[in-house]
Amino acid sequence: MHKKELEKLLEDHKSGTLDTEQLIKQLTDMPFKQFADFHMDHLRELKKGFPEVIWAQNKTVKQVTDAYEELKNKSKRFLLTRMTDEQAEALNNKTHFAFDAISRVGIYEEEPLPKKGHIIVIGAGTSDMPVVKEAELVAETMGNKVTTIIDVGVAGIHRLLAYYDKLQEANVIIAVAGMEGALVSVVAGLVKCPVIAVPTSVGYGSHLQGIAPLLSMLNSCAPNVSVVNIDNGFGAAYQASLINHIGEE
Amino acid sequence: MHKKELEKLLEDHKSGTLDTEQLIKQLTDMPFKQFADFHMDHLRELKKGFPEVIWAQNKTVKQVTDAYEELKNKSKRFLLTRMTDEQAEALNNKTHFAFDAISRVGIYEEEPLPKKGHIIVIGAGTSDMPVVKEAELVAETMGNKVTTIIDVGVAGIHRLLAYYDKLQEANVIIAVAGMEGALVSVVAGLVKCPVIAVPTSVGYGSHLQGIAPLLSMLNSCAPNVSVVNIDNGFGAAYQASLINHIGEE
Amino acid sequence: MHKKELEKLLEDHKSGTLDTEQLIKQLTDMPFKQFADFHMDHLRELKKGFPEVIWAQNKTVKQVTDAYEELKNKSKRFLLTRMTDEQAEALNNKTHFAFDAISRVGIYEEEPLPKKGHIIVIGAGTSDMPVVKEAELVAETMGNKVTTIIDVGVAGIHRLLAYYDKLQEANVIIAVAGMEGALVSVVAGLVKCPVIAVPTSVGYGSHLQGIAPLLSMLNSCAPNVSVVNIDNGFGAAYQASLINHIGEE
Amino acid sequence: MHKKELEKLLEDHKSGTLDTEQLIKQLTDMPFKQFADFHMDHLRELKKGFPEVIWAQNKTVKQVTDAYEELKNKSKRFLLTRMTDEQAEALNNKTHFAFDAISRVGIYEEEPLPKKGHIIVIGAGTSDMPVVKEAELVAETMGNKVTTIIDVGVAGIHRLLAYYDKLQEANVIIAVAGMEGALVSVVAGLVKCPVIAVPTSVGYGSHLQGIAPLLSMLNSCAPNVSVVNIDNGFGAAYQASLINHIGEE
Amino acid sequence: MHKKELEKLLEDHKSGTLDTEQLIKQLTDMPFKQFADFHMDHLRELKKGFPEVIWAQNKTVKQVTDAYEELKNKSKRFLLTRMTDEQAEALNNKTHFAFDAISRVGIYEEEPLPKKGHIIVIGAGTSDMPVVKEAELVAETMGNKVTTIIDVGVAGIHRLLAYYDKLQEANVIIAVAGMEGALVSVVAGLVKCPVIAVPTSVGYGSHLQGIAPLLSMLNSCAPNVSVVNIDNGFGAAYQASLINHIGEE
Amino acid sequence: MHKKELEKLLEDHKSGTLDTEQLIKQLTDMPFKQFADFHMDHLRELKKGFPEVIWAQNKTVKQVTDAYEELKNKSKRFLLTRMTDEQAEALNNKTHFAFDAISRVGIYEEEPLPKKGHIIVIGAGTSDMPVVKEAELVAETMGNKVTTIIDVGVAGIHRLLAYYDKLQEANVIIAVAGMEGALVSVVAGLVKCPVIAVPTSVGYGSHLQGIAPLLSMLNSCAPNVSVVNIDNGFGAAYQASLINHIGEE
Amino acid sequence: MHKKELEKLLEDHKSGTLDTEQLIKQLTDMPFKQFADFHMDHLRELKKGFPEVIWAQNKTVKQVTDAYEELKNKSKRFLLTRMTDEQAEALNNKTHFAFDAISRVGIYEEEPLPKKGHIIVIGAGTSDMPVVKEAELVAETMGNKVTTIIDVGVAGIHRLLAYYDKLQEANVIIAVAGMEGALVSVVAGLVKCPVIAVPTSVGYGSHLQGIAPLLSMLNSCAPNVSVVNIDNGFGAAYQASLINHIGEE
Amino acid sequence: MHKKELEKLLEDHKSGTLDTEQLIKQLTDMPFKQFADFHMDHLRELKKGFPEVIWAQNKTVKQVTDAYEELKNKSKRFLLTRMTDEQAEALNNKTHFAFDAISRVGIYEEEPLPKKGHIIVIGAGTSDMPVVKEAELVAETMGNKVTTIIDVGVAGIHRLLAYYDKLQEANVIIAVAGMEGALVSVVAGLVKCPVIAVPTSVGYGSHLQGIAPLLSMLNSCAPNVSVVNIDNGFGAAYQASLINHIGEE
Repeated sequence: MHKKELEKLLEDHKSGTLDTEQLIKQLTDMPFKQFADFHMDHLRELKKGFPEVIWAQNKTVKQVTDAYEELKNKSKRFLLTRMTDEQAEALNNKTHFAFDAISRVGIYEEEPLPKKGHIIVIGAGTSDMPVVKEAELVAETMGNKVTTIIDVGVAGIHRLLAYYDKLQEANVIIAVAGMEGALVSVVAGLVKCPVIAVPTSVGYGSHLQGIAPLLSMLNSCAPNVSVVNIDNGFGAAYQASLINHIGEE
Repeated sequence: MHKKELEKLLEDHKSGTLDTEQLIKQLTDMPFKQFADFHMDHLRELKKGFPEVIWAQNKTVKQVTDAYEELKNKSKRFLLTRMTDEQAEALNNKTHFAFDAISRVGIYEEEPLPKKGHIIVIGAGTSDMPVVKEAELVAETMGNKVTTIIDVGVAGIHRLLAYYDKLQEANVIIAVAGMEGALVSVVAGLVKCPVIAVPTSVGYGSHLQGIAPLLSMLNSCAPNVSVVNIDNGFGAAYQASLINHIGEE
Repeated sequence: MHKKELEKLLEDHKSGTLDTEQLIKQLTDMPFKQFADFHMDHLRELKKGFPEVIWAQNKTVKQVTDAYEELKNKSKRFLLTRMTDEQAEALNNKTHFAFDAISRVGIYEEEPLPKKGHIIVIGAGTSDMPVVKEAELVAETMGNKVTTIIDVGVAGIHRLLAYYDKLQEANVIIAVAGMEGALVSVVAGLVKCPVIAVPTSVGYGSHLQGIAPLLSMLNSCAPNVSVVNIDNGFGAAYQASLINHIGEE
Repeated sequence: MHKKELEKLLEDHKSGTLDTEQLIKQLTDMPFKQFADFHMDHLRELKKGFPEVIWAQNKTVKQVTDAYEELKNKSKRFLLTRMTDEQAEALNNKTHFAFDAISRVGIYEEEPLPKKGHIIVIGAGTSDMPVVKEAELVAETMGNKVTTIIDVGVAGIHRLLAYYDKLQEANVIIAVAGMEGALVSVVAGLVKCPVIAVPTSVGYGSHLQGIAPLLSMLNSCAPNVSVVNIDNGFGAAYQASLINHIGEE
Repeated sequence: MHKKELEKLLEDHKSGTLDTEQLIKQLTDMPFKQFADFHMDHLRELKKGFPEVIWAQNKTVKQVTDAYEELKNKSKRFLLTRMTDEQAEALNNKTHFAFDAISRVGIYEEEPLPKKGHIIVIGAGTSDMPVVKEAELVAETMGNKVTTIIDVGVAGIHRLLAYYDKLQEANVIIAVAGMEGALVSVVAGLVKCPVIAVPTSVGYGSHLQGIAPLLSMLNSCAPNVSVVNIDNGFGAAYQASLINHIGEE
Repeated sequence: MHKKELEKLLEDHKSGTLDTEQLIKQLTDMPFKQFADFHMDHLRELKKGFPEVIWAQNKTVKQVTDAYEELKNKSKRFLLTRMTDEQAEALNNKTHFAFDAISRVGIYEEEPLPKKGHIIVIGAGTSDMPVVKEAELVAETMGNKVTTIIDVGVAGIHRLLAYYDKLQEANVIIAVAGMEGALVSVVAGLVKCPVIAVPTSVGYGSHLQGIAPLLSMLNSCAPNVSVVNIDNGFGAAYQASLINHIGEE
Repeated sequence: MHKKELEKLLEDHKSGTLDTEQLIKQLTDMPFKQFADFHMDHLRELKKGFPEVIWAQNKTVKQVTDAYEELKNKSKRFLLTRMTDEQAEALNNKTHFAFDAISRVGIYEEEPLPKKGHIIVIGAGTSDMPVVKEAELVAETMGNKVTTIIDVGVAGIHRLLAYYDKLQEANVIIAVAGMEGALVSVVAGLVKCPVIAVPTSVGYGSHLQGIAPLLSMLNSCAPNVSVVNIDNGFGAAYQASLINHIGEE
Repeated sequence: MHKKELEKLLEDHKSGTLDTEQLIKQLTDMPFKQFADFHMDHLRELKKGFPEVIWAQNKTVKQVTDAYEELKNKSKRFLLTRMTDEQAEALNNKTHFAFDAISRVGIYEEEPLPKKGHIIVIGAGTSDMPVVKEAELVAETMGNKVTTIIDVGVAGIHRLLAYYDKLQEANVIIAVAGMEGALVSVVAGLVKCPVIAVPTSVGYGSHLQGIAPLLSMLNSCAPNVSVVNIDNGFGAAYQASLINHIGEE
């Protein structure tokens, strides 16, 4: 139902050619479609300020550049994740665009959001860096102050304990680990803030491409842990950013 | 190293019988144990105000009642989860104790915490009630205003949409679902707050005791979702409570 | 938004105290909730004639009898699946109610629907009988003429071929099998109608409680096969009934 | 038993050199092979009008072109699925042949079938396009009017609701989704027609190449859902076409 | 097509009221059903001498006793496997019936078959005895001389080697093992006859109810091994008996 | 213990410098090693006539050619399985050597063994050809008359039934199938000889690289089935050949 | 070959009725069986001092008491694991026998072995106690000084660090953990001795009865870890005891 | 807290400007970080003599060469595992560096450690060589005398028994096997020393990239077995070396 049709109905009602019962019937018969049309802008508004995201994996270069151009016209900032080299190359000389080769994240940002403190991204090993970096860049772009700590696997617990004070500063922690994923429980036990756990596919054999740390994290003995999909640095950062901005308008 | 030993060392240093280098060496040689002794209270203090929890499953009645008596002396409120009927019966006439037979949660509470708004617990079907109720009771005990919405499975989407306005009020949502767990993605798409997803073991056959909705939730196309273990209403509520209290001292 | 509020708005508009722009704004701001209120009856109407179903597993006797009484007032016929003996006993002397102990299906039926032909339920072995019977009873209650063929496992292919002519009469076939589930592909190859496949949990060892025939059926080399969950005779019958009534108003 | 042998037997019987008992014995001793010879044409006839299909995956270019030439002589239309570029190139300039690079479907069609209304193919995301397109092309070739709706993932439920009216027009819906596959339950809840669900391999990590949405769909809380193999757009379209043509001669 | 109808057709042909073409058409149109009717006896004849089997698991006492009575009238010997105590009790005082409580096998045998040599059943541990015994009893009933060797697990290889000579006497060996199932490969390496491997559910933890030895046996480095389902002593014995009787009429 | 040492011991005993007790002690102390030395030739002799096999997968070209030269000196015939193109090329112009590119089997054969009848290799689809061909070539090389039947998937049961008579001629059948693997149960139900089932990795999605037909075959309702590893045409042929030669010296 | 036969052969050789070549042939033809007879005592001797073990699970009371009586005559000490209450009751008043109800271990010990230092058994939570206790009792019975540390889960790392000094004293550590099993990596990082990891079945949901900590431990980032089966406290203690006694005669 | 700060505190206390209570408070408030600083050297010292290891998989050439240069300055010997050709080439002409192409292990060794006897590495097949070699090189570099035995798969048990005497010499055995992994149980049964089992990914089909032998080894009926991750030759050698050096200072 377009606005004009609605105006017509209301006019008819006002003029008496349509009685109240009939108008109500028409409005209540108004199927989902029109309702959705009305609300789309409303919803979009609600979510204003959140960067949109293009999941570039499985997309052609053209699909990505088309989506890029479309979003550029609608939004001051947005993200592209899991970009291929070809996709990155096609966009690399664009204004306001930057590509990070480690995390394969592309960022379009006309002007950065102010950074609210404080999310800590902590990664078990250097091999987890792509996921750590994805989380870091996404969280920063969404307006969070981010500190990244890397290479603090639990087999050398003193390395992690060295960051004990720093960890207390976080509103939310993103803990990234492959192998056995034990970092999550230890970190969660050291802090009182929520921890978002990200298992990575770094490992081999019975690691099952990340299933081992995923199960480990889901079964954490620390209660302040929730988990996202394997290698999902983006999702962890998005969730952490929402948490860090709780209570804001 | 007990406090007295430390006082002795410092005294010796002050009196000159122990030179600075030697004292520093003693302190740095101080192994983890003493360090831990020092910090235990510190850590406990940090986490003050959080209710402790006894996971009663796999415990004998005596183990539970002993733990109960011990915690009662230390704490004004604490929780017992997954209690058996026998365990509940053994505690049921105690002061300040209440047992909920649906969720099998026991609560010891001398005086309730003030309730901060607002966590919404939303459950797909009535069979998910035990997990929903566990989340609700844990969140309330931890000082959160909680609203519970039940029986809004996605196969009748209008039932869920009826709560659209209500959902916008939440700081964090706990979404509980068995079967295919699709409720989580739909709810997460309707709100801008973080969603903690709890798969339940309600289902049969290829449900695999909750693995189906667990995988579903981990692969949600909504980015504001993180997941806890199957049937872990407690963990979801704990995490949600931390999120709801972010920024408090 | 209740009807009265809407009437008031329209009245205000008619009387000129609310201009058209404002009224449209109010209507488009009308959140999902009101929309849902409007549409619930509409949706219920759409689905009129379909029996509602209570999944009795995991429910208490009281929950089941309460649901029974509620549905009885709304509907001329409905089904209860996976009933326990206790649940069945609690309802067993009710008017219009019948319980089948093999399939654990309960049927409330004030007057049967006319039977449209023709659904064939075919089961590999006698151990699959509970699922076969569930499918049969559900399909019949939903207004289908049903023929049931049992004990035609593929290891004795002549037993199945003996029903070749009969199978051609079906508009849709429900094929139920445990063990290796091979019945589905053979049946589907003999007919040109759609086949709904139901794996059962009948088997042992590497059968994995029905996963073996489930995978078998999903990988059928026959293209006219789609699959429902393990032991889900109800779902297969529901789907088959919809197919059998395609094109009806 | 070739026809001539049979004629001979009947002649002998007619002339009296073979008595009735002996003839019947010979006929009943006639093993499966002859029986099959008799019935092959019969069966082929029964299935007349159904396009045959070559599953080109795992086949050499020559195997595919040979099969193509053979089918071309027998049939006015047939399909090739999962074609490689090399296979497509080898056939690309043939008369009546068209290749779709997205779905990797090849169609040989001398004259299209009349289109019976109405199958809707609905896909959750643009990455599911290859499977969506496969379903669309197969359904069209089999004589169905097809409408395709894409990019209506449940995390933005308003996008799906916008098609509420359209969905009511379908006789059968093919719902295609990767990630968590939740689209299926929501769609199935909005309509009263049967839904054929197709999980796709679009996802990562705990998605397990499509196992996550497969399990999700098998456990759908909507009863009007049945499921085909991961990425099996062809099978879904075949099944949907049969359903759409139920009752035809 | 019943015999009388066929006689009628042939008579009509003989009398000239039905010409040869028409008769042949009628015969070739004769659908599968009639064909199957003709051949059922033929097939049953082919398999004569093989004992029939009732898989008693999941059957009621009545279903078992009914099947027993029916088979007793058709056959001089048959087997019942996986009997419950109740089922066994119901049959226990019957003539020609014996029940073995370890393997839960029931045997109806009016007169034993002559025993052909030689099947060896070898079991890794005493806990595998139920499966070993099932294989032994089934093989004996099917007319094989059987030697059983038990408790020769590979962790004490000398116990197995002590039977080296004996093993050479077998035409076929049934190797039964739980735990890691390594017995199969060692035994298969010591002999030149075929080995039928039976994994058992004896184990715990990562044994996964028999999946561990099942995978072990399927991956045996010995080429003279084939495998049956977990705990399927019956199937192994049936297969071994066929092998032992190869070449017999 | 080398022969000379043993001769020396016996000589000492004969001459009286070593008494009987001491000699027996020495002999019984003779550790496993010497024992093994003695028996190696014995064992090799036992297995004489069986072609040795080189599993070429995971081996370098040099490892394969070295093994080839070594075996050539010891044996009149042997097999190489899963050869790469490079390995095949390195051996291709050798005398008595032939390579089959479909199955990737290489055969060194100075003079063929006489063929004993009769093994039938039956394959569900043309995509299973590599495994079917491996089984065929291995069985032939081991001295069996082999008949191969291909493309008789159960979805067109008449194609399989056409071979009913032929199937009765086999002493043992090798049934090869990917997809849902249902061919095995149907074939096994048509014959009374043992069937060796080979699941193949031909399929996609929930096929899980052959796990679907593997489980299907392990759970066959036909008792005359045993199973080998996925794609293990070699093992099936080896087992079948042993069965076909049972009773020979 | 019994000793007498061997004496006879040697006598014949000595007397000249059997020449050396013939005797050697007879000895080398001596099949595995005799060899095994010779060596059984030798092997048993080698392993002297190790307590034998009866795995009581899946055994009847009689089987257990019989095995008990037999071992009692051969050995001064032995263990029974996973005893049922009935089994324990049947032995409970025997001399030298003790039963531990937590671990379900029974110990027959006429005189304890001297204790060599030092094995530490460390358990994550009180629910892991049965497995911890099994390891402790088995290790003690095998002659090791054992220290047990319990309830030091990694979510409260200070509890574990409090034992830092104590941990350094161990020659080998047995680390027992359910839930996510992270204790293992942290402990292994704190020490330089080998760690034997035991996952337990303590957990729920995605814990999969111990698979989660099992995978976690197999993927530990600490290199000084090896793993035994879920709940296998016995095996861990046995392995640890061997390690602790390395180099002893 | 740097040393200077600590000296300052102690000085203040000595001079009386800081009383004892205050100093103790400062020391006990000293958070984990400083503590860790103190202990890092201590821990490093503890582990002195152990070669550090770079897991080169998933690292860039630069990351590897950087780590190499850094470690070279700190350590006389270290290992690189799972090197790519590019990584090896970048280091290949360095002094004290050697690369083994089979195991992909790189060794930097200024001067070898003295070799303590005796670790035996035993591998089932030649395809397991990369893992066997990794274990061998790591163990040697860590100061162990190593004997390697290869190609002693259990299907030819005499090959393994030939090493019976040799096996008795080991303090610890590393048993490496793919396929069904049965070698481990047989070897463990022949010796009284601990066995570290390494499953390999050598196999196909239901081998599941090493899961089959992994499960096999975890379920070994021999109690002197513990297991490391699939293909983890390094971890097995590290663990074995620790065991072999037990009791050393």
